[in-house]
Amino acid sequence: MGEFDLIARYFTRPARRSPLGVGDDCALLAPAAGMQLAVSCDMLVEGRHFLSTVSPERLGHKALAVNLSDLAACGAKPLAFTLALALPAVQEDWLAGFARGLFALADRHDCELVGGDTTRGPLNICITVFGEVPAGAALLRSGARASDDVWVSGSLGDARLALEVFRGGLSLPADQFERARARMEQPEPRVALGQALRGIASAAADVSDGLTGDLGHILTASGVGATLDADRVTALMGVGAASAEPADGSGDPDASRPPGPSRDFRRACALSGGDDYELVFTAPPEARDAVIEAGRRASTEVTRIGRIDAESGLRVLDAEGSLLDQRFGSFDHFA
Amino acid sequence: MGEFDLIARYFTRPARRSPLGVGDDCALLAPAAGMQLAVSCDMLVEGRHFLSTVSPERLGHKALAVNLSDLAACGAKPLAFTLALALPAVQEDWLAGFARGLFALADRHDCELVGGDTTRGPLNICITVFGEVPAGAALLRSGARASDDVWVSGSLGDARLALEVFRGGLSLPADQFERARARMEQPEPRVALGQALRGIASAAADVSDGLTGDLGHILTASGVGATLDADRVTALMGVGAASAEPADGSGDPDASRPPGPSRDFRRACALSGGDDYELVFTAPPEARDAVIEAGRRASTEVTRIGRIDAESGLRVLDAEGSLLDQRFGSFDHFA
Repeated sequence: MGEFDLIARYFTRPARRSPLGVGDDCALLAPAAGMQLAVSCDMLVEGRHFLSTVSPERLGHKALAVNLSDLAACGAKPLAFTLALALPAVQEDWLAGFARGLFALADRHDCELVGGDTTRGPLNICITVFGEVPAGAALLRSGARASDDVWVSGSLGDARLALEVFRGGLSLPADQFERARARMEQPEPRVALGQALRGIASAAADVSDGLTGDLGHILTASGVGATLDADRVTALMGVGAASAEPADGSGDPDASRPPGPSRDFRRACALSGGDDYELVFTAPPEARDAVIEAGRRASTEVTRIGRIDAESGLRVLDAEGSLLDQRFGSFDHFA
Repeated sequence: MGEFDLIARYFTRPARRSPLGVGDDCALLAPAAGMQLAVSCDMLVEGRHFLSTVSPERLGHKALAVNLSDLAACGAKPLAFTLALALPAVQEDWLAGFARGLFALADRHDCELVGGDTTRGPLNICITVFGEVPAGAALLRSGARASDDVWVSGSLGDARLALEVFRGGLSLPADQFERARARMEQPEPRVALGQALRGIASAAADVSDGLTGDLGHILTASGVGATLDADRVTALMGVGAASAEPADGSGDPDASRPPGPSRDFRRACALSGGDDYELVFTAPPEARDAVIEAGRRASTEVTRIGRIDAESGLRVLDAEGSLLDQRFGSFDHFA
């Protein structure tokens, strides 16, 4: 199958809202009057953003999900995306699965594929996504102010747990591993929450490189600092909480298996594990009810995990109010 | 140097026209009232779209040029682009050169970098470009009508000649090789011509996969056929014409060197060599003066090379009016 057949078979569907979709030199987009276009772009490389063991369907989902997550962080409504795909070879079952996962998520968010590129090369998936947001209403990283609350959506850390199991350093019961793995391979972008937070949140970012790293981007852009409650953050692990070691050290009788996650390890996963695709955001204390109502409208849990300080830097406190001296960085592809 | 330093050092410049540029989860674009946004996306992979011998500066130029060429084919005015870059390692001199070539071309077209992504991985460059075009005025592939003229801009085939020299199957004198190589490595997107042809051309495409292939896309989209004059097309080679074999077979006395390009080979390069980044377009015969005037305004040569037929299929005639039985396909990355 050639390049043009491949595009026709797997990636061409009639344009529904865009004036022109796949098949010309350019696609055409027409944002509604008064709307700005939000644009984001993520490139996924095998071994760095996904493992070779991932199913093509989940990979198609994830490639779009990480981009929709950026739109969510800006409060934008998804409109369209382009897909550039480098493939080592044409494998029809792989392409069919990839397209199935991709379009299932795209359809749920009414986001249409309008163009792209395919070529032979080491597996690489690059999606650019377009959303619309009323002019001036986008959530930015730069709006956090001292005394704002810090909030996060959903759960944290489970994707990193799954990665550590794949890396062989950790063991989880099969059902917990499958849940953690689904979290890593099929994140749900918080698109509805992002839009619901417009006019309420003072700043927002998506948690892709780890909570502390992405919150750090907000702090830098806003010229402020923050204090986080480590226990509240760690309690946001879904699988991680269930897999906590019994206090007496009993549990898994098979000493040859790698150990389950320790408390410190779970804390590190929740605080800076990465690949969560939740939203971290700030809002003034008087907006607490509005934030909770926005979460309800978006059917997404939201949890208050700290506060913004005038003093720069990020402080993480344990249950006794002691400062954790751990340094929590941001995931860096070149560090 | 980490990912964030790399972006800050080489790829962050203040947004000039866009409401929000590099550094948040999304960039924001605000097309002017009545404008549609033209979007195109091209992915470049080493060994397929460029050779490892290319200078980073020329590669930066080419990565953007091939995208601007798609905007040109739609008659759109460049606005902004995103850049996703997978790099095997951080090499500062490479990055500095790449950024220099990229921004030199971007600045000439007033096209600003608004976002993107960097990651470690096999070298891969994916650019998505945005332009604006008055609603309804974009040049499409689907507008060609029987009896329209077929036109092409600039010169054809020289990029392919250079590629064949790199592949070792062809020899060119050093000065000719350098000219052909510059054509391959630093194409000039026909941005001004594309805009000048709005309201004049009935259909257009950019010549990236070879003239006959890209004209073929116009024919298919428009439901028509065409007849081309092979000699007029072959005469559009710049280097190729200069390097033509003497009719008596004399010339290079060194029989150990690979031969210069034969007439058939030059014809094949001009008709379907690829990597030309010219515009092939159609216009009614009564618009001939307007087309020539558009070329003059854009300082770009335009040449009439054939006509559109009601009968489907592409016919290529030699100087005696005989049909060439050669099949000229389109470059296909998976064929």
